[in-house]
Amino acid sequence: MSDAQAAKVRAAILGFGTVGSSVARILCDSKPAGVELTHIFNRNVARKRVDWVSQSVIWTEAIEDVLSAPVDVVLELAGGLDPAGDWVRRALEAGKSVVTANKKLIAEHGIALDKLARSKGCHLFYGAAVAGGVPVIPGLQQGLAGDRITRIEGILNGTCNFILSKMEDGADFAQILKETQALGYAEADPTEDVAGFDARAKLVILLRIALRADVAVSDVAAKSITEIAAIDFAYAREMGCTIRQISRAELRGDEVLATVGPMLVPQDSPLAWSRGTENMLLVGGAYGGDVVFSGHGAGGHPTAVAVISDLLAIAHGSCAIGLPSKKVGVSGDFLLRHYIRLVVKDRPGIIAQIAGALAEQEINIHAILQKPGHTKESLPFVVIVEPCPSSALRRALARIATFDYLLEPTLDLQILEPEAGL
Amino acid sequence: MSDAQAAKVRAAILGFGTVGSSVARILCDSKPAGVELTHIFNRNVARKRVDWVSQSVIWTEAIEDVLSAPVDVVLELAGGLDPAGDWVRRALEAGKSVVTANKKLIAEHGIALDKLARSKGCHLFYGAAVAGGVPVIPGLQQGLAGDRITRIEGILNGTCNFILSKMEDGADFAQILKETQALGYAEADPTEDVAGFDARAKLVILLRIALRADVAVSDVAAKSITEIAAIDFAYAREMGCTIRQISRAELRGDEVLATVGPMLVPQDSPLAWSRGTENMLLVGGAYGGDVVFSGHGAGGHPTAVAVISDLLAIAHGSCAIGLPSKKVGVSGDFLLRHYIRLVVKDRPGIIAQIAGALAEQEINIHAILQKPGHTKESLPFVVIVEPCPSSALRRALARIATFDYLLEPTLDLQILEPEAGL
Repeated sequence: MSDAQAAKVRAAILGFGTVGSSVARILCDSKPAGVELTHIFNRNVARKRVDWVSQSVIWTEAIEDVLSAPVDVVLELAGGLDPAGDWVRRALEAGKSVVTANKKLIAEHGIALDKLARSKGCHLFYGAAVAGGVPVIPGLQQGLAGDRITRIEGILNGTCNFILSKMEDGADFAQILKETQALGYAEADPTEDVAGFDARAKLVILLRIALRADVAVSDVAAKSITEIAAIDFAYAREMGCTIRQISRAELRGDEVLATVGPMLVPQDSPLAWSRGTENMLLVGGAYGGDVVFSGHGAGGHPTAVAVISDLLAIAHGSCAIGLPSKKVGVSGDFLLRHYIRLVVKDRPGIIAQIAGALAEQEINIHAILQKPGHTKESLPFVVIVEPCPSSALRRALARIATFDYLLEPTLDLQILEPEAGL
Repeated sequence: MSDAQAAKVRAAILGFGTVGSSVARILCDSKPAGVELTHIFNRNVARKRVDWVSQSVIWTEAIEDVLSAPVDVVLELAGGLDPAGDWVRRALEAGKSVVTANKKLIAEHGIALDKLARSKGCHLFYGAAVAGGVPVIPGLQQGLAGDRITRIEGILNGTCNFILSKMEDGADFAQILKETQALGYAEADPTEDVAGFDARAKLVILLRIALRADVAVSDVAAKSITEIAAIDFAYAREMGCTIRQISRAELRGDEVLATVGPMLVPQDSPLAWSRGTENMLLVGGAYGGDVVFSGHGAGGHPTAVAVISDLLAIAHGSCAIGLPSKKVGVSGDFLLRHYIRLVVKDRPGIIAQIAGALAEQEINIHAILQKPGHTKESLPFVVIVEPCPSSALRRALARIATFDYLLEPTLDLQILEPEAGL
């Protein structure tokens, strides 16, 4: 233990929403040694005031009150790039350490902020930015620093996992999305979650920590879960799979393969076991093999646990092991089997023409599945193709999209290989 | 990052067995920045020498060569209490930090050694002592320090898990034990593993870190897996369960409930999914809910990853968050359902008499199961009792043991409740 323990570390909360109030609540209840909450900052702070925090806490709506005070650690829990990014920068410049749950900020500006923190001799911790209460970042930084991680696969967005696991049980997308919003799991505008942007920011952070690869957020392709229908779960089940929003990346030579989107996951993979808002991360190491982390990735209290753990790390004089990362190119060109669901107005010769378009790109068909109970007027069927580069498949699908009997845009999902499981 | 990074940290390996040679191999291959291997110590070191480590490494069989050298970190990978404990003490006294994979030493003497390390201003890390390559200790210390952990349940011995998951698939205990020994997963004398002593040492370490409870190793009851037979897996399956060696503990008021042994685990619990030599730990927090860690708990390379991660933590100026623990009493008196398997020479009145012995202790019978295909001369059957204190059941079983129609000692297993799963 260090000298830092002798004096109490003074902490300020920026943003008194769900996570901020959970952090305050846990600090008040469990009174961890070495830590004191001194400020709570929020816009229109009057409406936020609660009577269960210590009388000595200063409530303020002026960020300068925090930045000019002898606060040691700023807990940035407001989220978003602006103005939170400015607060974090100014806090670090003032020599204050920062703990943040802000995945967007860390994904976009983490490297620069880390550099700024080091130059000021203070700390930047963001364990809560990925997988909330599941200690994925400390587990990787502290526990797996000695390995060479070559692959990560995870369920990093609890909202999508909740929706897809409910759809697996028979719920309809639109209906379950409404329910998810009513439960407070999804925002009024669910785009960040369902389009994969939230998970992508987290994947970019993990790429940096686990694969030591710096990539731009916008370089990683994200596919929405909105196109998934009940029939896809039925076909997936037939193949011994389910469907989950997966964020995955692996090293291939000097570049990194990375993507986020709904995928077919074998039912015997740990990734298929995660239900509800659970988060899960599977990490493949060159020396240690596969390690799986899972638990509650979101919600006030689990996220607050990660924030307070980081605060305690600073209070106890610990520091993150920052192994160097380097800029690398990103590709989405995985070599995987694909699930392709087409809806056609049936007539003779369709299979031949589709098979031809695939063959032109040297893609082999593994199976064709067609469930009974549909009319020839609107006939869904599924083509499973053998492992092929995503780019080749994209070309084939562009060709197929020109065929006039197609009634809906074609759905194309990667299939996680069984050996990808633990 | 700290000033420690400027100079290289000099490390010595004590014990060049499976783990020691894996550590050397990974250090040679991945050449992590800030670390240099300077010494390898082993008895009769000549027979251990390999040509793939740097020429500059000093091979020695005299521990003084290491202790008197300007070595910064000693990696103790010999195991056992003696003489390894003496080496660790002398290294710390000489102001050297220590990284060890020695669960026995840390379980017995961890608190004193930690104190010694702090008094000398150096570090004691033992991330490899529990669950090998699965970052359970950094995950708890660094990532969950902000929670109040109330319960841990885990599969902490890969050998037992390998044996029991093979028995689940139909293998015979004696035969699979031999196979396990041939594969190098079990020692010639398998007592440490099968009797639960290895897992118990790890549980005691986790009790300290997660529940902040200091308990004596010998105060935790351990039950051997040797009494488990094929028929128990058949009955377990009928109940939607399997059998695993489980190490578990929970806080109850001022004391801690703790035990190690084979238990019935519901098939929908993550603990039932672990197969082969996998390790798994489920941690229940008051604020963050359940978190699960799993992966390869043993073997040279996974254990070496944990050792090198600890070494890097020291090289990067990090330190373990040592939250205070306190001495507490241990009880094995869980309130759980039990599986009781009896083998009798059948005659009328047996059930009535056994039910009577249970009723005397106010234990209710939930179900009686009897699979066909056995003769009245040697009839196995199973009694499932409703949740009852283990102590009451022990008294009832002592009474039942006096009945003359019992042909074998009665097997009694705890049943993990379904809600114990994630």
